[in-house]
Amino acid sequence: MTTTRVSPVSPTPNRLKEQTGWSGLIETYRPFLPVSATTPVVTLLEGNTPLIPALSISERIGRGVKVYVKYDGLNPTGSFKDRGMTMAISKAKEAGAEAVICASTGNTSAAASAYAVRAGLKPFVLIPDGYVALGKLAQALLYGAEVIAIDGNFDDCFNLVKDIAQEYPVTLVNSVNPYRLEGQKTAAFEVVDQLGEAPDWLCIPVGNAGNISAYWMGFCQYHQQNKCEKLPRMMGFQAIGSAPLVQGYPEKSPDTIATAIRIGNPANWKRALAVQEASQGGFNAVTDEEILDAYRILAREEGVFCEPASAASVAGLLKVQDTVPSNTTIVCVLTGNGLKDPQSAIDHAQAQVKAGVASELDAVAQAMGF
Amino acid sequence: MTTTRVSPVSPTPNRLKEQTGWSGLIETYRPFLPVSATTPVVTLLEGNTPLIPALSISERIGRGVKVYVKYDGLNPTGSFKDRGMTMAISKAKEAGAEAVICASTGNTSAAASAYAVRAGLKPFVLIPDGYVALGKLAQALLYGAEVIAIDGNFDDCFNLVKDIAQEYPVTLVNSVNPYRLEGQKTAAFEVVDQLGEAPDWLCIPVGNAGNISAYWMGFCQYHQQNKCEKLPRMMGFQAIGSAPLVQGYPEKSPDTIATAIRIGNPANWKRALAVQEASQGGFNAVTDEEILDAYRILAREEGVFCEPASAASVAGLLKVQDTVPSNTTIVCVLTGNGLKDPQSAIDHAQAQVKAGVASELDAVAQAMGF
Repeated sequence: MTTTRVSPVSPTPNRLKEQTGWSGLIETYRPFLPVSATTPVVTLLEGNTPLIPALSISERIGRGVKVYVKYDGLNPTGSFKDRGMTMAISKAKEAGAEAVICASTGNTSAAASAYAVRAGLKPFVLIPDGYVALGKLAQALLYGAEVIAIDGNFDDCFNLVKDIAQEYPVTLVNSVNPYRLEGQKTAAFEVVDQLGEAPDWLCIPVGNAGNISAYWMGFCQYHQQNKCEKLPRMMGFQAIGSAPLVQGYPEKSPDTIATAIRIGNPANWKRALAVQEASQGGFNAVTDEEILDAYRILAREEGVFCEPASAASVAGLLKVQDTVPSNTTIVCVLTGNGLKDPQSAIDHAQAQVKAGVASELDAVAQAMGF
Repeated sequence: MTTTRVSPVSPTPNRLKEQTGWSGLIETYRPFLPVSATTPVVTLLEGNTPLIPALSISERIGRGVKVYVKYDGLNPTGSFKDRGMTMAISKAKEAGAEAVICASTGNTSAAASAYAVRAGLKPFVLIPDGYVALGKLAQALLYGAEVIAIDGNFDDCFNLVKDIAQEYPVTLVNSVNPYRLEGQKTAAFEVVDQLGEAPDWLCIPVGNAGNISAYWMGFCQYHQQNKCEKLPRMMGFQAIGSAPLVQGYPEKSPDTIATAIRIGNPANWKRALAVQEASQGGFNAVTDEEILDAYRILAREEGVFCEPASAASVAGLLKVQDTVPSNTTIVCVLTGNGLKDPQSAIDHAQAQVKAGVASELDAVAQAMGF
């Protein structure tokens, strides 16, 4: 058995320079964020996600239009929620909280749990009993969240977490937490830093309308600081069965395969309308089929695997492509990692395993089409 | 219905500067890689993964030891395999290949498929019939791989893909492809760039022993170019049921929960021994229980979710921690994203959902421990 050999000489003294690479959102964009020198920075080095040229989608549109995808699924817990959570948890820690709470079964619960445990805070997650598949909670559970299932629906959960945060020393980190959008706006800073200018259009999936509001806030702040010369037109896309901003009134029974944007009455409704107005943008709806087509195009042509809801941005762009001016630059936001939802990949891959092939060169070659 | 408003004025001319941010491994480390000006660079902007300070693990060890995790699960397809694949696929494209093939059910098939479709090459994946759960193939299928299941075992698959690559215009991208390690060595460059120096120890899970060889190659090349003053001791960790390099002979029936390193006869055996010798490193074995403990510690204390196999590096470090010299800097490599294997998270979270709680403030508060 090979054992570890430890050198008899004393170790090299620790002569490391200060760590150089990316240091997380808060350190990178500190002047733009509501933090002070005494704010404890709770970070998993989120952000710094790639802006990937979408070669095939650009080609589909043609006319010199350049499309990029901002792949925010490569954040530490797999979604853009980490951007907001590094801020929300750092501020909770600064305020002396010992626990945080949210009502969520998806990306929010994962991000809240990861950042909370890193900060030494206890994460609580409230869900409706009997409604949620365990797989959706895999991350929160492994991060050590205490998950409480109540005899009620999602609305009950939201009301209860608000009450809990009011009555007990527990910080609410659902999207009503004002620091969430502050963190999320840094995605716009990154887009400008990566492109060297703001894009002409920003295409983004819209559920609660928090992220579109955050991006716009980021672009405006960067513009005021002369970091970019223009502001993008903000193009929000909703699923057709859950499109309150497109139809102009709340949707009582929101229904779409894109669960991350299945929201009938967006919390940031007014903000979203203001963004549309100010940016000369628009809201449009896409069908589930269009979302799934875009999901497959991203995977099969670009090599990018996102959550179905994320693909709404690309589905929307393809839907309105005839209205895209020539020679413009467009960024589509992909909010979550496709690995969050492997079942959708299996269900919608439209690929089959060719089984029962003999273990012989000729048989395999034939199966391959030679 | 709100429609898209298109401005009547002509669009802003496309005045973008060249894209600034991270441009992928090949562009960033071009002088160190076997590419020329005419090599088509196939990239998803892989690499640039965070080096996260492991605060809790550092504290567990104490004595001024600083531990970081290199979180390579944040590569575009969720594992370090993307580093090798950007090289392998770019070189295949350069050589005029129209298809690539590999025998794999895991991270290799995902990475190969994503980069192949991005390059416009057809990806083929060979697997043993009736052996593989569909979930493991979700990524490859969505990326559009043609998956062929043969009446044979994994050895048969490996032999067949070699024969196919010999006889037909198809490039083999399994680990025997020499460009794979060239790409993987860039992880060592990043560690040095991020720390400002090489670490004292590099802890890494060892299966086929390709990655430990690639890291060492990277550290040595950087050292020769005076990018770092020292070289790390390379500490490889295997699962005890699959520990050929520790026991000194191949394991006929490798068995461990850490499937990504369940390899009985590593392809890079000689190379790994040379690395051990040259770096004064060592190979040690960890039990599945130690791996799962480290997996949970990473999630519940650091907020980092990795594949079980990845946690072998941290499990190993904790096991030999008494031999770590004081005031040293240690990097543990986390090769894959925990989202690749949600079932392990559910099975091993050791957390429970507290169900059946009444939808009332007092009941919820009581369930929370108030």
